[in-house]
Amino acid sequence: MRHSIEMEKLTLGVCYYPEHWDRALWKDDLQRMKQYGIEVIRLAEFSWALMEPEEGKYDFSFWDEFLALAAEENMKVVFCTPTATPPAWLSEKYPETLNADGDGNLMYHGMRGQHNLTSPKYLEFCEKITRHMAEHFNKYDCIIGWQLDNEVNCEANEYYSKSDHEAFRAFLKERFGTLDNLNEKMGTIFWSQTYTDWDQIHLARRSTAGTGLANPHMQLEQVRFISHSAVHYLALQASIVRETAGDRFITTNGIFENLDYQKLMESGVDFIMYDSYPNFAYAMDRPDGGEGDLKDRNFSFNLARTRAISPLFGIMEQQAGPGGWNFRIHQASPKPGQLRLWTMQSVAHGADFVSFFRWRTCSFGTEIYWHGLNDYSNRPNRRLEELSLVKADFEAIKDIAGHPYEAAVGILCDYDNEWDGQKDVWHGPLRNFSTDGWFRSLQKKHIPFDFVDFREETNLKDLEKYELLVYPHATILTKERAEILTQYVANGGKLVMGCRTGYKDIYGRCPMQPMPGEAAELCGVTVEDFTFLAPGEPMEYVNWNGKRIPAPVFNDVLEPAFGGKAEGFFEGNYYDGKPALVTKNTGKGLAIYFGGCFAEETADAFLEALSIQTPAPWLVLPEGCELAKRGDQYFVLNYKAQSCEITLKKKVTDRLTGNEIEGTYEVAPYGVLVLL
Amino acid sequence: MRHSIEMEKLTLGVCYYPEHWDRALWKDDLQRMKQYGIEVIRLAEFSWALMEPEEGKYDFSFWDEFLALAAEENMKVVFCTPTATPPAWLSEKYPETLNADGDGNLMYHGMRGQHNLTSPKYLEFCEKITRHMAEHFNKYDCIIGWQLDNEVNCEANEYYSKSDHEAFRAFLKERFGTLDNLNEKMGTIFWSQTYTDWDQIHLARRSTAGTGLANPHMQLEQVRFISHSAVHYLALQASIVRETAGDRFITTNGIFENLDYQKLMESGVDFIMYDSYPNFAYAMDRPDGGEGDLKDRNFSFNLARTRAISPLFGIMEQQAGPGGWNFRIHQASPKPGQLRLWTMQSVAHGADFVSFFRWRTCSFGTEIYWHGLNDYSNRPNRRLEELSLVKADFEAIKDIAGHPYEAAVGILCDYDNEWDGQKDVWHGPLRNFSTDGWFRSLQKKHIPFDFVDFREETNLKDLEKYELLVYPHATILTKERAEILTQYVANGGKLVMGCRTGYKDIYGRCPMQPMPGEAAELCGVTVEDFTFLAPGEPMEYVNWNGKRIPAPVFNDVLEPAFGGKAEGFFEGNYYDGKPALVTKNTGKGLAIYFGGCFAEETADAFLEALSIQTPAPWLVLPEGCELAKRGDQYFVLNYKAQSCEITLKKKVTDRLTGNEIEGTYEVAPYGVLVLL
Amino acid sequence: MRHSIEMEKLTLGVCYYPEHWDRALWKDDLQRMKQYGIEVIRLAEFSWALMEPEEGKYDFSFWDEFLALAAEENMKVVFCTPTATPPAWLSEKYPETLNADGDGNLMYHGMRGQHNLTSPKYLEFCEKITRHMAEHFNKYDCIIGWQLDNEVNCEANEYYSKSDHEAFRAFLKERFGTLDNLNEKMGTIFWSQTYTDWDQIHLARRSTAGTGLANPHMQLEQVRFISHSAVHYLALQASIVRETAGDRFITTNGIFENLDYQKLMESGVDFIMYDSYPNFAYAMDRPDGGEGDLKDRNFSFNLARTRAISPLFGIMEQQAGPGGWNFRIHQASPKPGQLRLWTMQSVAHGADFVSFFRWRTCSFGTEIYWHGLNDYSNRPNRRLEELSLVKADFEAIKDIAGHPYEAAVGILCDYDNEWDGQKDVWHGPLRNFSTDGWFRSLQKKHIPFDFVDFREETNLKDLEKYELLVYPHATILTKERAEILTQYVANGGKLVMGCRTGYKDIYGRCPMQPMPGEAAELCGVTVEDFTFLAPGEPMEYVNWNGKRIPAPVFNDVLEPAFGGKAEGFFEGNYYDGKPALVTKNTGKGLAIYFGGCFAEETADAFLEALSIQTPAPWLVLPEGCELAKRGDQYFVLNYKAQSCEITLKKKVTDRLTGNEIEGTYEVAPYGVLVLL
Repeated sequence: MRHSIEMEKLTLGVCYYPEHWDRALWKDDLQRMKQYGIEVIRLAEFSWALMEPEEGKYDFSFWDEFLALAAEENMKVVFCTPTATPPAWLSEKYPETLNADGDGNLMYHGMRGQHNLTSPKYLEFCEKITRHMAEHFNKYDCIIGWQLDNEVNCEANEYYSKSDHEAFRAFLKERFGTLDNLNEKMGTIFWSQTYTDWDQIHLARRSTAGTGLANPHMQLEQVRFISHSAVHYLALQASIVRETAGDRFITTNGIFENLDYQKLMESGVDFIMYDSYPNFAYAMDRPDGGEGDLKDRNFSFNLARTRAISPLFGIMEQQAGPGGWNFRIHQASPKPGQLRLWTMQSVAHGADFVSFFRWRTCSFGTEIYWHGLNDYSNRPNRRLEELSLVKADFEAIKDIAGHPYEAAVGILCDYDNEWDGQKDVWHGPLRNFSTDGWFRSLQKKHIPFDFVDFREETNLKDLEKYELLVYPHATILTKERAEILTQYVANGGKLVMGCRTGYKDIYGRCPMQPMPGEAAELCGVTVEDFTFLAPGEPMEYVNWNGKRIPAPVFNDVLEPAFGGKAEGFFEGNYYDGKPALVTKNTGKGLAIYFGGCFAEETADAFLEALSIQTPAPWLVLPEGCELAKRGDQYFVLNYKAQSCEITLKKKVTDRLTGNEIEGTYEVAPYGVLVLL
Repeated sequence: MRHSIEMEKLTLGVCYYPEHWDRALWKDDLQRMKQYGIEVIRLAEFSWALMEPEEGKYDFSFWDEFLALAAEENMKVVFCTPTATPPAWLSEKYPETLNADGDGNLMYHGMRGQHNLTSPKYLEFCEKITRHMAEHFNKYDCIIGWQLDNEVNCEANEYYSKSDHEAFRAFLKERFGTLDNLNEKMGTIFWSQTYTDWDQIHLARRSTAGTGLANPHMQLEQVRFISHSAVHYLALQASIVRETAGDRFITTNGIFENLDYQKLMESGVDFIMYDSYPNFAYAMDRPDGGEGDLKDRNFSFNLARTRAISPLFGIMEQQAGPGGWNFRIHQASPKPGQLRLWTMQSVAHGADFVSFFRWRTCSFGTEIYWHGLNDYSNRPNRRLEELSLVKADFEAIKDIAGHPYEAAVGILCDYDNEWDGQKDVWHGPLRNFSTDGWFRSLQKKHIPFDFVDFREETNLKDLEKYELLVYPHATILTKERAEILTQYVANGGKLVMGCRTGYKDIYGRCPMQPMPGEAAELCGVTVEDFTFLAPGEPMEYVNWNGKRIPAPVFNDVLEPAFGGKAEGFFEGNYYDGKPALVTKNTGKGLAIYFGGCFAEETADAFLEALSIQTPAPWLVLPEGCELAKRGDQYFVLNYKAQSCEITLKKKVTDRLTGNEIEGTYEVAPYGVLVLL
Repeated sequence: MRHSIEMEKLTLGVCYYPEHWDRALWKDDLQRMKQYGIEVIRLAEFSWALMEPEEGKYDFSFWDEFLALAAEENMKVVFCTPTATPPAWLSEKYPETLNADGDGNLMYHGMRGQHNLTSPKYLEFCEKITRHMAEHFNKYDCIIGWQLDNEVNCEANEYYSKSDHEAFRAFLKERFGTLDNLNEKMGTIFWSQTYTDWDQIHLARRSTAGTGLANPHMQLEQVRFISHSAVHYLALQASIVRETAGDRFITTNGIFENLDYQKLMESGVDFIMYDSYPNFAYAMDRPDGGEGDLKDRNFSFNLARTRAISPLFGIMEQQAGPGGWNFRIHQASPKPGQLRLWTMQSVAHGADFVSFFRWRTCSFGTEIYWHGLNDYSNRPNRRLEELSLVKADFEAIKDIAGHPYEAAVGILCDYDNEWDGQKDVWHGPLRNFSTDGWFRSLQKKHIPFDFVDFREETNLKDLEKYELLVYPHATILTKERAEILTQYVANGGKLVMGCRTGYKDIYGRCPMQPMPGEAAELCGVTVEDFTFLAPGEPMEYVNWNGKRIPAPVFNDVLEPAFGGKAEGFFEGNYYDGKPALVTKNTGKGLAIYFGGCFAEETADAFLEALSIQTPAPWLVLPEGCELAKRGDQYFVLNYKAQSCEITLKKKVTDRLTGNEIEGTYEVAPYGVLVLL
């Protein structure tokens, strides 16, 4: 298992749809791609109807013809299984393959992704076409890898078809063994929900609370089940392709909800590709967030999340122009410089391969406004001009491939809490709030960070490389994970935890123990009282060694215990003066429990108090610039429409221009530097 | 029929769920309850699956075991029928027992209350378990009363399952006899809606206007039908329990929509319990209303509404901590003092029994955040501390039990207008607006009031005890009710009516007669013209003897008739100068018709003009305090987070402390006094 | 084909429902109508249940009785087919006649218009009752014309019943012949949507994007299909009525979405009646738009749209009082003068017949608040008083009948773009924005305009009468239409086109050609770049010969070509200084391409630059007044609650009063003048 892409050098690609265009255009398209430095094309992910025009009749002649030309033009190919868009005949003849809403209303043919992930019939069709394709196409040398399906869980991430209910039962039977065990773990004694037969169990259909809402523990299992189904669905394809793939990579593109990508990689997918569309920040239905909004820079958050799965990855779809569907999504055009900026944003965060979506804007269908590098007219335009600059950039820093992003701060995240928090308004929204606060603070202070997937398999080594770990609201915290964190601290690590920690078990139940459960001894603290801050109430603050920091949204009122020491105290509400921040030294390290959520200003205070520094102290950047580090090279990305002044306290080289620079230096609007 | 609770003294209770906890905890729980003064526990309302684990197999051993312990510990019990939460096997095997939405989509197992109220099969199951339970448990001396079902019409108050459509037809057949009669009363000649067969009749399924919308007269019958179904559903259980209940009381908890609680009490339920959760005022999804919002004090409105049904009542569920479900509702924690304040608010309004919800926060299920007196951890907390204060309060004023709330002002309300106004935007919203205006004014002026259910059965005696009756918008006003009001006025009463009075009959039709129909002679007035005040238009005022008072939302332009006298005149709109307020003296009393809605300031002016005084002229209170009176004792409740100063012009005793107080006195934040 | 109403003089009518009232009222009603100048009544459009009380049993005795009285009273009648409200027995017995939502949920009996337009069974019922009625009632001399159905496509304008899916398939088969052709035109190769059997085709049921959303080209065909169905539905009735109608006119009332009224008139309907309810501007759920909102005057927009269909038309339903349903719509009452103002607004725009809705407010049913001329009480009121004034007005200017509205400015509109833009957020909203901008500007500058339906059948002659044509965003622009526009310009016309022109074909596909497609040569321009203006960005401006005009919403960055000349340049965004406005002289005329949308201020600048003048330069009007011209007579309509001063530079006669007026003159609040 590699789990990271392996490119020899930074590489450019593009998504291409020969089936959308007259054959007469193909050769010119491929040759122009090469002029712009494009070496790889992605093909065929939506072409099932073309390859299996009627049930059981496979016809690969179209792709044979095209691949022959691609080979001739020395174009490398990522080939796709087309299972994201079943043909009309399939959906019409086998309605059991269709996804459904919570009332059982089927999702019919007409858009894409109308299928479910569990229908034996659909899996059979997927298996067959994948097998036929693998056997047929793996003979093509130009194919360097496979993408399975497309954006699984994008169009829908809940499934309520008949086969889903059945598969859910099987999943629970496997997981709990007996109904007695299930009833106990799911707390069904509450509201008389006890199951006495497996057939009484369903996914969360319509209840008196609407559709998709049920017993909270069942709800958590439902998300686990969806992820399980998606992993199984892709693993099936992976195993078939693998048989004949040789050393070709197998990937899929994401990242979407309700899918454990770590499990997916353990099940046969080599690494993950990300689809990066930062221009959503400039969509017409997005109100202007003003200075406080990081806009397109927020996609660095997503890229960090991707990196937690595959440290080095590819961008399968990199925004090439304004995005849009005909009936929703309408984005302003990327401004001159943004296409290049966003490409380099991807590279800065660990992408070794960047494939634009798409070569030319489609003339028909739902995505007539999802603009490619070329316009409908195929005439030169400023996006192609900008692509030339990207080509030069890639050439200049091509050797960065293989060098991972480097960070000394890790934000712990895990699927248990993420999934439980989807519906649980008592901790899920807190997590989003606080993660955003840390992200903003770290961004503006130019401190690179990683997201760290905290899993059963995570070991001390995975954590030790970080100077600081932040685990904002670990509501579900197992004994095992608490122990690893204790070791991390004992070995010298710094750990920060927030309110609402440790009060749930892995089924989302709240055991009879004092809060914060398994974190109590680790952080030296007990929670004595707690409250949301009601709307209209003044902000709550914590006085931490004389500094006043915000403690928004929710407060745990603390009491030191197990050797903890109260260092911060509430100011404002009825618990005025009570402990709000408790620290505990264990071994060489330090754990802090903070009885609130983390606003940006709160995170600022922690970074300062814990002396967490930027890795480039010789570089003075304004807030509008992002700093990233791969190997020994520093990326500076200016997200602003205005140029900005930076200060370099030593002489360095900008590898993109080859210039040696020092002292004050002006970075262009949307400008990028790679410093060594 | 008692219609009021009968407690010997103020009594504390708690809702307890032994089925949620290890047997090892039971004894300690019961003993600690008693330490806190708790004498009664409510049991079993969600335990059907426990008592009938499979169809027809009844097993009461769990409750036998627990009741034996309760008896041993001298704990009294309110026992419940468990029909609010049918077991999974029942809902699965008999889908005809499930409620449905307007499209017929069933509400499945997974939350609670998924059943309908009319399925013969469900009624059969309810009858059987109620009979088995009554026969089995009525032998327990510790059981002092029964609660039927739980919060009927809470999870849903509309029903569209097949049996509901059938029962609706039967209801209409009983009510109208012939289709000709029904067609005439329902005005079906309009839009060609004439029914020619009973089977053509349905509840308001999906129409071109959406679901739940239909012919307005049918819609009103639909609400009457829902209430009828709910009364029938509970009456069935009441009659069975009654057979063996001896002098045990039979109650149910509420209060919810689409249910005529007066009819319910005529059908076998002794009195009503209210579930009081004032902390909804501090939920996270409730924007801060600022000074203008009475917040938790608004629950005094609901308590007054409850008192109209049962002058002395119990609180079956009194808020014990922050409320919450996992997926919605997230409340800030009650502040220190509020738990006690809200308990005394209940008592002040007529509660002789207060049972907290619940003893300990549940560790699993949808209500893991509906916090009980005890935390998950079972450790001491400030809610339990506050409970000790409540215990002392109850002890100090225990003799207040049996003394009803006293008021000289009555606000008339009735189900006809309430139900017709649910959909009718031309009068329903006016009623809510004006009732709120009167409530605010009366609250801030410290004038206690009652809601008075104005029914066919209401007689002069029910009204005579009030100095002032307000009937804000009696759109449906029968000749019989108009006559009683005329007698009330003739005998010296003061009556205030607002715009939109008297233009509908009991089917919601608008007969061919001048407005305000039956109120014309009573109030001495005819309506010449009328209009909503369009958005953006300036406020309309009425000049009443030189005072300018608001006449918001809707205006009736008046003409005196039948001896009425114009005393107020419009200022502002095109009907400037026309009569807006007409008075008529009849016998010893006075009727006033006001051609507008009642804002708080409008109600203020009426109270002043009619010389309606607080019953405690010796007591000067700030607006932030509520005044209530039971027997000869005066409750002062401070809803503010700040202490306040009151002035007592004579020496009185605060029964809670035993202190004699006089002159200026400081009431603590959330503080309560009971003065004698 | 007349396509316009033909009245001998301005004529008053009223909608009357004898079936709603006691026979005892009929005679008095008819006689009072005549006192108020009413000569025509509309009857029977909702009386199917009365005429066919059970399947196949026709009973016209009710109407025979009433029509005998009408004849006796010399009242003329517009008689209606009652197919808008199928009886309960029909909907119950034949559910296949019901419309359905996108999930197939049927729309049941209970409101109105629950039927679909394609069910063979429903069409059979419609055919039969229409035939029986035509044969029976066409013998009545008092009947002067027929209204078919009522407000087709009002209650619903999407249809998803089984028969609709089937009829859609037949429609597409007829239109495309082969699946290959359909697949190509609909771009189904995108997302693997290729159809291999006609039965795979459906209207846009639920997909992963929700219901009603599908392939955009299919979506456009779906609207075309709905219009086709509605036309077919009405044409069927028209052909039957025509057989025995003699010289009686056949009309229907509108106007509603998804219906090509031009095609309807080609299919057997003589002309269109409009239902005019300007008081929607004063509904309670409509926020106050302040000065910027034209409110009731916006209905002049709709009247102009109606005139594009039938230059002279009737108002079948003219607002007579506040409108309202019981559960939605609640309007303030029309103020004194507005009833007359709105009647004259209709006349000014080309109505020769005005029929009020309705004689008396209904006492029951959904429309108890849709107030007629008479109140429930039947007593005199101010609406009847105002009707007397209208009667006098009609008498004074009765000879205006037959004289059409005159305008020198035309705004081109067409169903292709309107329908494609319903879902396409990249051009539809722009069209609404810009049409509104032109409307506001023309209104306030007192320049009458016409909407011009630009169709395949449109010829040069239809356009030549306009000095200026504005075609705001002709996204779909065929070669043929571009050619007619070129001729129009060559012959001396002025043409203004906005951004987003010419990039789609008639299937909504975007051909591989430079923008603005067929308009490129006509306007002398190529589009080099384009963008939405993102939320929060500053307004974009165009410097046009030194004047700064707004270019909101979307910008096309231009390049002159084919002899065009850049005259305006962008100011603000990254394309600062690039061409924004290009002009091209062809023959005697001028075409302008503007790279933005048209705000009111933008349109102002064009009118000034192109020297478009009011037709009454001798008349100085404030912005609050509308100017209209029929023949040689000028209507002045004051929409304000305040009187206003106008200046007449020559002596003219106000035909309504007979006064000669000159110089400054005060127009009353809501006042009307007709000047000659």
